[in-house]
Amino acid sequence: MAVLGVGLIGGSIGLAARTRSGAHVSGYDPDAGVRQRALELGVLDAAFEDVAGAVAGAEVVFVAAPVGVLEATVAEALAHAGGDCVVSDVGSTKRVLADAAAADERFIGGHPLAGAETAGVEHARGDLFEGATWYLTPARGSTAGVLYERLHALLRRFGARPVAIDAADHDRLMACVSHLPHVLANALVEQALALTAAGEEGEHAGAEAPAGEGGDGKGAGRPQRLPAVGPSFRDATRVAGANTAIWRDIYLSNRDALIAGIDELTARLGEARGALEAGDGEAIAAWNERARGAREALLGAGLTGGTGTDVAELRVGVPNRPGVIAEIALALGEAGVNILDLVLSPSEDNSRGVVALWIGGEQQARRAQELIGGLGFAVARG
Amino acid sequence: MAVLGVGLIGGSIGLAARTRSGAHVSGYDPDAGVRQRALELGVLDAAFEDVAGAVAGAEVVFVAAPVGVLEATVAEALAHAGGDCVVSDVGSTKRVLADAAAADERFIGGHPLAGAETAGVEHARGDLFEGATWYLTPARGSTAGVLYERLHALLRRFGARPVAIDAADHDRLMACVSHLPHVLANALVEQALALTAAGEEGEHAGAEAPAGEGGDGKGAGRPQRLPAVGPSFRDATRVAGANTAIWRDIYLSNRDALIAGIDELTARLGEARGALEAGDGEAIAAWNERARGAREALLGAGLTGGTGTDVAELRVGVPNRPGVIAEIALALGEAGVNILDLVLSPSEDNSRGVVALWIGGEQQARRAQELIGGLGFAVARG
Repeated sequence: MAVLGVGLIGGSIGLAARTRSGAHVSGYDPDAGVRQRALELGVLDAAFEDVAGAVAGAEVVFVAAPVGVLEATVAEALAHAGGDCVVSDVGSTKRVLADAAAADERFIGGHPLAGAETAGVEHARGDLFEGATWYLTPARGSTAGVLYERLHALLRRFGARPVAIDAADHDRLMACVSHLPHVLANALVEQALALTAAGEEGEHAGAEAPAGEGGDGKGAGRPQRLPAVGPSFRDATRVAGANTAIWRDIYLSNRDALIAGIDELTARLGEARGALEAGDGEAIAAWNERARGAREALLGAGLTGGTGTDVAELRVGVPNRPGVIAEIALALGEAGVNILDLVLSPSEDNSRGVVALWIGGEQQARRAQELIGGLGFAVARG
Repeated sequence: MAVLGVGLIGGSIGLAARTRSGAHVSGYDPDAGVRQRALELGVLDAAFEDVAGAVAGAEVVFVAAPVGVLEATVAEALAHAGGDCVVSDVGSTKRVLADAAAADERFIGGHPLAGAETAGVEHARGDLFEGATWYLTPARGSTAGVLYERLHALLRRFGARPVAIDAADHDRLMACVSHLPHVLANALVEQALALTAAGEEGEHAGAEAPAGEGGDGKGAGRPQRLPAVGPSFRDATRVAGANTAIWRDIYLSNRDALIAGIDELTARLGEARGALEAGDGEAIAAWNERARGAREALLGAGLTGGTGTDVAELRVGVPNRPGVIAEIALALGEAGVNILDLVLSPSEDNSRGVVALWIGGEQQARRAQELIGGLGFAVARG
């Protein structure tokens, strides 16, 4: 087996392969220091300075190179790999690569939904893919073939759940559930900043202050700062301005699907705008109810990281002091109730807050409700 | 003093006024049961079946009625209130009401940024407004007057921070930081659901399945369910389909500002789309960096519920088992480090996760980093 690019993902693939499938793992990385550390950490059996050396004799090759050099590295791997070798990758968009390698049925695109905050081979873990969905975008000809079977079986040994998906569908999915929320977060923070006096100055930097704008009050009472308002804005903008080096490449590599996603969202916003402009309360209510239904359907589909169809949401009013989260988490932990997700939304002065908890399973949720009520906090079903 | 509408907010105003300013509080509510409970709970000194009775002799009147009857109740209050009485409200949008009552300088619009998950007079608290921003939209003539001073002083006694703001600016602000994120959440969940097989069926309900759509693979590999992907979508859609009865009225009452907000966002999305279509990596990087700067400026402005200009973000990789949040929260609580905000993002199988923590102040953040590192978790600055 070979791994090209030995960072967090490549390194974790190496570890998983060595410890879980007994494979001999060769690795390539352009950085000599990385190669050295990978050998020391037991991520690789052998390290090579070039792709050809790592790929020689391999039955499976994983390309875990950065998005910018991914296509070239895949092409190089295919050029050097044997006729019976399956070449896969771990990039977050799939169609462009699938198109580029379409002529070669040894290529099967891949995208493990796994990662960590900490990059680099130092943080590689053999269990990184345990339970993770691992999308595969088989090209025509390979789907039923021995190469796909081999790759699928190996990923199962990593603990992953391989799922075949059309490359274009994959990219549309990622555009909607990851890339588009990032774009919206970026747009929202700029829009909010422009509402403040600071943003206003920034927008007019270098220009004369407009005199006599008319009596509409625009800018007159503009606050120097925004208030600490509800959690909806904060939640929606948490990912604004994410790592530029990574996200520029992600946006570019999935730009077709992302543009389509932006266009669809713009159309959906236009529908809502129409109902608002008409002052049509019934249409707005129906639209909001549709969204409620959609969110519930998606919750069941595991989008909160839940375990199935019954993820329950609890909302707890708490004093926002050190220890209150601990108190709740301990009570639930001691009772064996696992918190799937947790968000604390503080009030402006941080004296009060609401803790939203997501609990898997109706029985556990009821138990959690009892326990939290027993601590003296007001608790409601979300 | 009089309170018209005795729910959570109206009841809390009554309690705050009675306990903190020694005022005699009369109240009106259309519901006899609510009036009875309000008297029992000590929220009111006297309860009335009509507005006229409650308002008689009052120096300050707060209208805390639902959005749908707010304007009518304000008008009724003004009709019955004395010439020296200030009438205010607690509605979440301000311009329409300011316009309607503009001829009467006894009216000063208000909007306390406070609330709780639990509605109803039973949950009223005298300290609900402690530290909360309370926007006031004084009409011309009243700003410098005795009525504004009286209202301002009373709100200070409630523990609130009164802030004067132009009514239109207020509504633009709320549109951007609250109403627009809700609209986007609604649009995003519908868009995501349409990508699944379930959503597809829903869209084509009653129609013939289209035959021979061409070879683009659309719908072919469409997943039955969406994967449990990153937290960006989940965060952005947490408020999707919020309480329809409340939000229909909020959307309608602020529709002018919300439409303007949608238009501005659409234009901003168009800019991002243009850079994507041109494949302009430099423009995308610059756009993302601008968003990063905007988010940092807003963080400093307290949008995460922080205490000032230095809110630090820590990201901790943790096993997602019962007790791990407690362990971290306890360690920080024992050291006196307060967690302003906390989000746990689980991996798909819930075996691993990332805890994002927001800590106020560089010193506390450094201490938190040490403590968490000492527990054996990987911790990075966000």
